This record gives sequence, structure tokens and C-alpha cells, in this order.
Amino acid sequence: MPWGRISGSLNTPKVEVAIDMGNPFLNRTVDGFLKIGVVGASKVAAEETYHCIKGGNVSKAKVKDALGKMCKEGFYWGTVAGVYVGMEYGMERIRGRRDWKNAMLGGAMTGALISAASNNARDKVIVDAISGAAVATAAEFLNYIT
Amino acid sequence: MPWGRISGSLNTPKVEVAIDMGNPFLNRTVDGFLKIGVVGASKVAAEETYHCIKGGNVSKAKVKDALGKMCKEGFYWGTVAGVYVGMEYGMERIRGRRDWKNAMLGGAMTGALISAASNNARDKVIVDAISGAAVATAAEFLNYIT
Repeated sequence: MPWGRISGSLNTPKVEVAIDMGNPFLNRTVDGFLKIGVVGASKVAAEETYHCIKGGNVSKAKVKDALGKMCKEGFYWGTVAGVYVGMEYGMERIRGRRDWKNAMLGGAMTGALISAASNNARDKVIVDAISGAAVATAAEFLNYIT
Repeated sequence: MPWGRISGSLNTPKVEVAIDMGNPFLNRTVDGFLKIGVVGASKVAAEETYHCIKGGNVSKAKVKDALGKMCKEGFYWGTVAGVYVGMEYGMERIRGRRDWKNAMLGGAMTGALISAASNNARDKVIVDAISGAAVATAAEFLNYIT
């Protein structure tokens, strides 16, 4: 049959860097760090590209600035994700169950930890823990819906 | 065997308000709105409770203020979630596949829509769309890891 179909496919950037640390806890943390770090860096890349297109001029300094931002935000997102994934896994092991309460507790611990690491006041740390718990719970619930 | 075990269980607040709108698209949207709206309201409730405990005094005006905030934030979170769930479901129907690209596209549409609805400038709408896409993609990836 000479009538072929034209099939277009958008190649998706696959992030498949598996690093085995010999420990499921560490594996997940590193995995989360890498995957979500790439997402964070991509977000900055997309934003900076938009700004460059809009501004119309691409200078060397701007690209350098964008790269610096990518590294910084990618690292930040990666850290948050790594800590969260590790915490959630830890909660699962401690509680012996998988449900949304793991996400809530993991989110709260992550929020508190990241906030404390950024030298925030005690008040801010607790509010961040609450926010982290809420965001993680919401993300978990969204999964059940879709 | 007279030796029973003491089993404690924390009763979790279950949000089981199923409203059938007769359409899977609407059902999901309403479901997302209700579930995540409750999470948003709970976040404010927890925050306000912390502030009250810390401040030491609970006045009528404060409780009223907290309730107002709960409604407002609950509504906001609910709207974002409802739009996102609807968008993701729509993407799934259009693309005929379930993968992280649905989350990315749904997140971008949601970010743009919510931002445009808040009367933001065109620039802000696009940047919000990028952020929405990144956050949704990250949330989707986190699922695969854990």
C-alpha cells in the first residue's frame, strides 16, 4: 500500500538520568532533585526566552544572566522536590501506609525545613510549613480527581 | 482471646460531596473546585489558628476576619483547581493520551486564564502561563517518583 500516513510527533525531552545510590531513600531524593530541578530550569529558560523575544535584542550579558537564573532556580526547585520526595517516602515507611496524609506531613516538613534553612523567623517557618502541607495535599488530591 | 489490641486511629475529614452534573467534564471541574477549595480554606484556618494561639487573644472580629479569608482563599484555590482539572481533562480528550504533556498544557492554560481574569497585563499573563505549566509539570513528575 503506497499511501502512507504522515505522522508528526513532537519529541519530548526525556530526563532519564538514573543514579543508583544503593538506597531507595537516597535514590528517590536524587531522582526528585534532578527531575524537578530540570523543570525549574526549563521554566526560567521559557520565561527568559519570552523576555528576549519581546525585548528584541539578545546580548551576551542577558544570556549569561539567564543561565545564572536557571541554575539558581533549578537548584531551588530541585532541593524542594528532593526534600519533599524524601520526606514523603520517610512518612510512608514510618506510617506504613500510602495516603494523602503522607503528602500533607511531607509537605509540612519540607516547608518548615526549607524555610528554616533560608534563615526565616520562627513565625514564618510555621506559616511556610502550613502552606507546604496545603500545597502538597492539594497536589495529591488533584491526582485522585484526574 | 481477651488480649485486645489498642488501635488508635485519627479520623480524617473526608470530603465526599459528589455532585453529578451529568457530564464528566463538569463533574471533574466541580469536584476539583470543591476538594481543593476545602484544602485552601483549611490552610487559612490553620494559619489563622496559629496566629490566634500566638497572639493569645481570640476576638469576634478576628474570627470573622479569618472566616472571610477562608472563603476568599478557598474560592481562589478552588477556581484554580477547577480550571486546571477541566483543562487537563480537555487536553486528554483532544490529544487522546494521558501523559505529562496534558499537565503542562493544562497548567499553562490555567495560568493564562486565571491571570487574564485578574486583569493582569499581557506580559504577566504569559509569564503566569509559563509558571503554571512548570508547576503542573513538576506536580505530575513528583507522582511518578513517589
